[in-house]
Amino acid sequence: MKRIFLTLLIAAASTVAWAQVKVVYHLSEGIPQAARAIGNIRNHLNADQSVKIVVVTHGPGIDFLLDGAKNPKGQPFSGDIGELAGRGVEFRVCNNTLITREVSKDRVAMEAQIVPSGVAEVARLQAKEGFVYIHP
Amino acid sequence: MKRIFLTLLIAAASTVAWAQVKVVYHLSEGIPQAARAIGNIRNHLNADQSVKIVVVTHGPGIDFLLDGAKNPKGQPFSGDIGELAGRGVEFRVCNNTLITREVSKDRVAMEAQIVPSGVAEVARLQAKEGFVYIHP
Amino acid sequence: MKRIFLTLLIAAASTVAWAQVKVVYHLSEGIPQAARAIGNIRNHLNADQSVKIVVVTHGPGIDFLLDGAKNPKGQPFSGDIGELAGRGVEFRVCNNTLITREVSKDRVAMEAQIVPSGVAEVARLQAKEGFVYIHP
Repeated sequence: MKRIFLTLLIAAASTVAWAQVKVVYHLSEGIPQAARAIGNIRNHLNADQSVKIVVVTHGPGIDFLLDGAKNPKGQPFSGDIGELAGRGVEFRVCNNTLITREVSKDRVAMEAQIVPSGVAEVARLQAKEGFVYIHP
Repeated sequence: MKRIFLTLLIAAASTVAWAQVKVVYHLSEGIPQAARAIGNIRNHLNADQSVKIVVVTHGPGIDFLLDGAKNPKGQPFSGDIGELAGRGVEFRVCNNTLITREVSKDRVAMEAQIVPSGVAEVARLQAKEGFVYIHP
Repeated sequence: MKRIFLTLLIAAASTVAWAQVKVVYHLSEGIPQAARAIGNIRNHLNADQSVKIVVVTHGPGIDFLLDGAKNPKGQPFSGDIGELAGRGVEFRVCNNTLITREVSKDRVAMEAQIVPSGVAEVARLQAKEGFVYIHP
């Protein structure tokens, strides 16, 4: 019994030390913020190759994930999105925003997943799945 | 003893799974951010009916909670504040801001509570009361 | 055994209640955000004298930590930085930003520490060291 207990204690302690860092990037502002965030995420992946990143978008934050979206330099975002998705980054788009802005789901990048509410997803990832928060 | 121990372990594990999600919305920018946040909070409550939301404001973030405040469409915020308070949302205003900007407490919406420091409250809710963070 | 177990349980419970609040202030915008953040941090320290604050900067967020930096009122930031460092605040600067913007390390305030990646540091402090998050 004592041994089981100590094993569990050690397991609990090492969970914090060894656990993968999981980060939600919260994007709600628009194209300039998205362009910055893509640079941030690339740096983040280079600095911590085991990090799990989920990008949750709502409001104008979804714009870079719509077909034909271009960054402030006039280049399409599709290449960045494909590259980051290939490195394990997930993208989520708020369905409330699609409805309010009357944007068809067909216009959302195939790499992105549609969730009922962007803000509820940002909170859920932190409260239920151990994610930490970055507002780029 | 073993049974008590297992019961406690199960209780600890289920705390995370079943606990209410608690979210602090951090507002420090001004009227446009407040108008966006109100829409976000309404969507959040619709998506997760058990969520607990506390809005902590300081600096220009307090403006929408002052008497006569109007949103960018020229409508008073008082209706939104009353509606959200009725759905369990709490509003907190930084007393440092009131002092620095020489705003009388009489001008603060009756639904809002005055706290000594907005930033200390945002940190305390996360560190001591299990809240997660959203910057709208 | 039972006594050890209860002692550990009480210790675990009181850790949350008594632990020092640790806060990462995330700065990525530039001089106006830095000026606001300095006021916020001063208020925070006055409201909670035991709080531990680490300021992590990247992108334009590093500007106030470079030699000769002045706030929007034309006063040098060096006095604020020295004062806050004297009160225990730590400042960290993103090395990716220094490289990308071709800023020499010699220009960084001596109170600041250079870290490989600002965003990875913001995430690490939250995930591994129990910090909570504020975006000023």
